[in-house]
Amino acid sequence: MFIHQLEPRFAETDALGHISNTIFPIWFEDARTPVFKIFNPEMDVHNWTLILARQEIDHTAQTFIGKSVSIQTGLGKIGNSSFEVIQIAEQDGQVIAKGKAVLVHFDYELQKASPIPDDIRAQLEAHKV
Amino acid sequence: MFIHQLEPRFAETDALGHISNTIFPIWFEDARTPVFKIFNPEMDVHNWTLILARQEIDHTAQTFIGKSVSIQTGLGKIGNSSFEVIQIAEQDGQVIAKGKAVLVHFDYELQKASPIPDDIRAQLEAHKV
Amino acid sequence: MFIHQLEPRFAETDALGHISNTIFPIWFEDARTPVFKIFNPEMDVHNWTLILARQEIDHTAQTFIGKSVSIQTGLGKIGNSSFEVIQIAEQDGQVIAKGKAVLVHFDYELQKASPIPDDIRAQLEAHKV
Amino acid sequence: MFIHQLEPRFAETDALGHISNTIFPIWFEDARTPVFKIFNPEMDVHNWTLILARQEIDHTAQTFIGKSVSIQTGLGKIGNSSFEVIQIAEQDGQVIAKGKAVLVHFDYELQKASPIPDDIRAQLEAHKV
Repeated sequence: MFIHQLEPRFAETDALGHISNTIFPIWFEDARTPVFKIFNPEMDVHNWTLILARQEIDHTAQTFIGKSVSIQTGLGKIGNSSFEVIQIAEQDGQVIAKGKAVLVHFDYELQKASPIPDDIRAQLEAHKV
Repeated sequence: MFIHQLEPRFAETDALGHISNTIFPIWFEDARTPVFKIFNPEMDVHNWTLILARQEIDHTAQTFIGKSVSIQTGLGKIGNSSFEVIQIAEQDGQVIAKGKAVLVHFDYELQKASPIPDDIRAQLEAHKV
Repeated sequence: MFIHQLEPRFAETDALGHISNTIFPIWFEDARTPVFKIFNPEMDVHNWTLILARQEIDHTAQTFIGKSVSIQTGLGKIGNSSFEVIQIAEQDGQVIAKGKAVLVHFDYELQKASPIPDDIRAQLEAHKV
Repeated sequence: MFIHQLEPRFAETDALGHISNTIFPIWFEDARTPVFKIFNPEMDVHNWTLILARQEIDHTAQTFIGKSVSIQTGLGKIGNSSFEVIQIAEQDGQVIAKGKAVLVHFDYELQKASPIPDDIRAQLEAHKV
């Protein structure tokens, strides 16, 4: 499991005085960086092999500025070319959001899914939750 | 069903050359404005009665800058205090994303769900898909 | 002069109840699209020849959700390889922000400025304010 | 002088493969948090006394994902009710952007500027650059 810590930004609040729900996909994507690096250690954007097929987020409590947020990221089901990333965000000891993302190992040139290589699969397995 | 038209912004692209997946929750929230107005015709942020409990998005095709996007928004299941919003985004005649949002009629003062009033429920029902 | 109309988005508000100042650079960039198209009619991101050297914005009034915003965009000084874009945003008949952006005609391959071609210069001149 | 360190996010890139210029105002605002806390130690958004009057940013080099960014923040001219914040962002030992923000000590209830209290002024002075 990977841990990502962040401080909510003022620009991430909305008129209801809390963190906008539209920010969680950005935080969760950012917290998936260690997963991206399994596929692409240099984060070379010209050689990217992942695409997001689905994202779902349950918002379980309001989130506020002024207290840090911690996001746990682990792997869920791993298929032939796709896999799930499971994420939990906490603030002040309380779960504020739970996320699931489905990513596909993708060949942007051929514009189609491609099997996850074995060495990468082994690394993903090591982070299953 | 409500229709929302938009032009993707340059700032909404990412390094893969397409629209970032993190932008869809913003577009979908914006396209839910007519639903917000059923509850709050003036969009008075000091008198807001909705909270997002869950959002899920399936990304079915890549989205690019330079062509407009159209989002259809309708109502799904309507419960005692919560309801689903169903959304479909298209670009260039192709479905690019499908969204479902679960919203709760919420009393921010009491910090708890509150039943949807009958007159509002009738308006929501009129937009079921 | 180009006119760009937009509806502020809920996600663009901040905890002070108004539109975040961090959103204006996005709106102004978006409103510069007709200028981008003078250089790149197809908005082909793989063939981009402009880079932003400087942006400045004066915020003259608070901006709120629920009322449309109109942005006027025109050309200022035009140099050998760089030029100014002058922008004014209004809401409800009031000027809310004034912007100036300095853009450079840029060769991303050589990583240096390159002279503005004459035919493009003529089109820029036509939109001077 | 205050130092703020950050890792660029994937969602902050744009189709040119670098960090979008529209992100710098967000980073700079975030890096001004210690200045906000001089006025409002709890970051209580219901008791906010600052408003942004002007922001200007010079972009001096392209910024990329994968390497951390460091922002130095200090105080410039301090007037009766307004003051300047001077900021410099670096990546990989290179200055990528320089910012100046003009903030006004503002009474949101009266909707007008109000003099900076002496104890706060003393703290601002201590961070002059």
